[in-house]
Amino acid sequence: MKPVKVGLLGLGTVGTGVVRIVEGHQEDLASQVGSPIVIEKVLVQNKNKARNIAIDQDKLTEDPWDIIRHPDIDVIVEVMGGIGLTKEYILEALALGKHVVTANKDLMALHGPEILAKAQENRCDIMYEASVAGGIPIIRTLVEGFSSDRINKIMGIVNGTTNFILTKMSQEGASYLDVLKEAQELGYAESDPTSDVEGLDAARKMTILATIGFRANVALEDVSVQGISSVTKEDILYAKRLGYEVKLLGIAERQDDLISISVQPTMVKQSHPIASVNGVFNAVYVYGEAVGETMFYGAGAGELPTATSIVSDLVAVVKNLKLGVNGMQGSLAYKEKKLKTDDQISSKYFLLLKVADRAGVLARITQVFADFEVSLESVLQQPTPSNPEAEIIIITHDANKAAIQKVLATFESLEVVHKVKSVYRVEG
Amino acid sequence: MKPVKVGLLGLGTVGTGVVRIVEGHQEDLASQVGSPIVIEKVLVQNKNKARNIAIDQDKLTEDPWDIIRHPDIDVIVEVMGGIGLTKEYILEALALGKHVVTANKDLMALHGPEILAKAQENRCDIMYEASVAGGIPIIRTLVEGFSSDRINKIMGIVNGTTNFILTKMSQEGASYLDVLKEAQELGYAESDPTSDVEGLDAARKMTILATIGFRANVALEDVSVQGISSVTKEDILYAKRLGYEVKLLGIAERQDDLISISVQPTMVKQSHPIASVNGVFNAVYVYGEAVGETMFYGAGAGELPTATSIVSDLVAVVKNLKLGVNGMQGSLAYKEKKLKTDDQISSKYFLLLKVADRAGVLARITQVFADFEVSLESVLQQPTPSNPEAEIIIITHDANKAAIQKVLATFESLEVVHKVKSVYRVEG
Repeated sequence: MKPVKVGLLGLGTVGTGVVRIVEGHQEDLASQVGSPIVIEKVLVQNKNKARNIAIDQDKLTEDPWDIIRHPDIDVIVEVMGGIGLTKEYILEALALGKHVVTANKDLMALHGPEILAKAQENRCDIMYEASVAGGIPIIRTLVEGFSSDRINKIMGIVNGTTNFILTKMSQEGASYLDVLKEAQELGYAESDPTSDVEGLDAARKMTILATIGFRANVALEDVSVQGISSVTKEDILYAKRLGYEVKLLGIAERQDDLISISVQPTMVKQSHPIASVNGVFNAVYVYGEAVGETMFYGAGAGELPTATSIVSDLVAVVKNLKLGVNGMQGSLAYKEKKLKTDDQISSKYFLLLKVADRAGVLARITQVFADFEVSLESVLQQPTPSNPEAEIIIITHDANKAAIQKVLATFESLEVVHKVKSVYRVEG
Repeated sequence: MKPVKVGLLGLGTVGTGVVRIVEGHQEDLASQVGSPIVIEKVLVQNKNKARNIAIDQDKLTEDPWDIIRHPDIDVIVEVMGGIGLTKEYILEALALGKHVVTANKDLMALHGPEILAKAQENRCDIMYEASVAGGIPIIRTLVEGFSSDRINKIMGIVNGTTNFILTKMSQEGASYLDVLKEAQELGYAESDPTSDVEGLDAARKMTILATIGFRANVALEDVSVQGISSVTKEDILYAKRLGYEVKLLGIAERQDDLISISVQPTMVKQSHPIASVNGVFNAVYVYGEAVGETMFYGAGAGELPTATSIVSDLVAVVKNLKLGVNGMQGSLAYKEKKLKTDDQISSKYFLLLKVADRAGVLARITQVFADFEVSLESVLQQPTPSNPEAEIIIITHDANKAAIQKVLATFESLEVVHKVKSVYRVEG
């Protein structure tokens, strides 16, 4: 049996994991696909660097074109990351008829449609399970498992760093900055944590999930994004007291073919299954019209979970190769994209206000909600140590985003409202 | 585009759901597979019965052979249940080159290898996602999502009826018989609940999951089964006090290629994600060597969740049909099955004993554990109202099943042990 030859772009943590799995599970893999899978060439930045994996020195190359234009290589596995050059390599590989497996969420979120089109044009497979939620096979589930259903909501904890931070803040009552520092020391957060903590990484993943789930080409700019850097330990304390946990949720929703996608810190009812997803774990909650509620939970990152997803994609590509059916997945995004406007996006909200503690204030404030037709589920007023100031905690019924924005704008000009301390979307 | 014609065996709850989804999502399905999917013939017991779905009377037949031998039907969807005749129909359909989608766990657990072999011999697809955990695409996940990993543990709440009963007992402190009665009134339990409450239904599903997960032909008789009918509300109370929930868990484990499969009421640590799966929901927890911990959660039964799984299988079959690659999934069970003996099966145990309340009893009892080399994690002795009797609650460290059986046998002959009230496996 002729082996299938793979070119690996990148030998960092995940690349090393791919080598380990392909070499360690050779027998199992061969039984599944009917021939050996061989890693033929590996792109590295420096051939002479010491590595914690034994690999034939002859297989290493510093020139990507050695791999992309290699006549015997059938499949390219891209784990080098980056966007500009990486995209060029992948497009060229596809043009040369090579199948591609990638873990690159940035690339797929930004250039997914172009890459998918190029793959289809050349009857090549492009697979990217590892780009979202590491070891959880969520893309395969959305594409195949729910192919007959109509998915109306995808809600995900898709960034492990921020979930680690929020979990620690919740469990230990620690402050955002203290936990961020700890996460950096543990290697869970980068020295520049912006992409994680400001929600950009999650937004990229939600772009990919929404495109697949709703079968429409969602773009990164369609996602409304807010990160966790303004979440305080007091907010989390209030949330817990009311029976909620604060989670950075990506939420993609569809209603009558209108879609909305957002990433924001959200108060999730403790009884909701996603509320108890803690630490660096990821989970994706999917609501399908027929299937109802489902949730998929697992490691969101890490060498081996991510590498597992990549190698499972590789197995799928090799099976297709044996069957001669690559590049047949068809267009996943055959629906026109229609986005909701802010007055069509509806959810519950939590608001924490600092107000003047005197007669008539509560009436004045609740009147503002009434003016914009926002009805309230619960209102709690309590004194604060800084008298004559009081705190008002409000949870609304479902309200549209535009109305909430008008409420907040009105509070800006209201003398009795000293400060809108927090505003959170509420789920579950 | 020539439509793909489907024959449906059975028009009960799930069959009706299949018709609803195929007809309601016609456009979406056609976009995915490139041609319409038409339900051509439906087997019913009585053509003239009133139905809560509009269906062309001409499509109904009372003769299964009308469907199985129908020259234009490409795919048979079997949702009639049963084993004897149903097996005959499916084998004949496969012999005639028709692909089969089934939700029949009993059939697949008992005759899976024979049916899979017949399918392969005739280059036909046989798919059975709906046979386990209703709407959760767990079979697809094990086969494809984790194809490159080595799965070492599958732990499932795969029976909604028993999970409903145990959840109610836990949340309301109700007795087993009271909740069973309620479940029967709600239609969650059958009038003869044996198959559910004695763990047989769960055992059939674990047979299917273990076969796929471990790639070895597990048989129903390989599963050690214990149901929930002896679980008392006191047991659940004790469990909660110690930080556990009692769940009916199917547990399939592999270690050095030796496997064991069991179904039993199990104490699960409350912090384990599977402990908070409540009501009729199902969840399957999978531990892979590379991917680590994952869990898949969703509705385990019901018309639409089950029908969704069936139609997703149907979509996969039709895609294969278009590509001309049916019957290529190959053997899933290419490994030799080697079962663990009782002295190789290891877990923690909880024991609740009623003992004589006098000096030296605790020493005598703990000596029995020591004699069989079972070490203890915690021991609690407390008086009971029925003095001079005391209760002893013991949680062991990992101990082998054979040793625990010897401990229990010794207690039988020990005058100071009045009764071994409960024995549970402990997880998490």
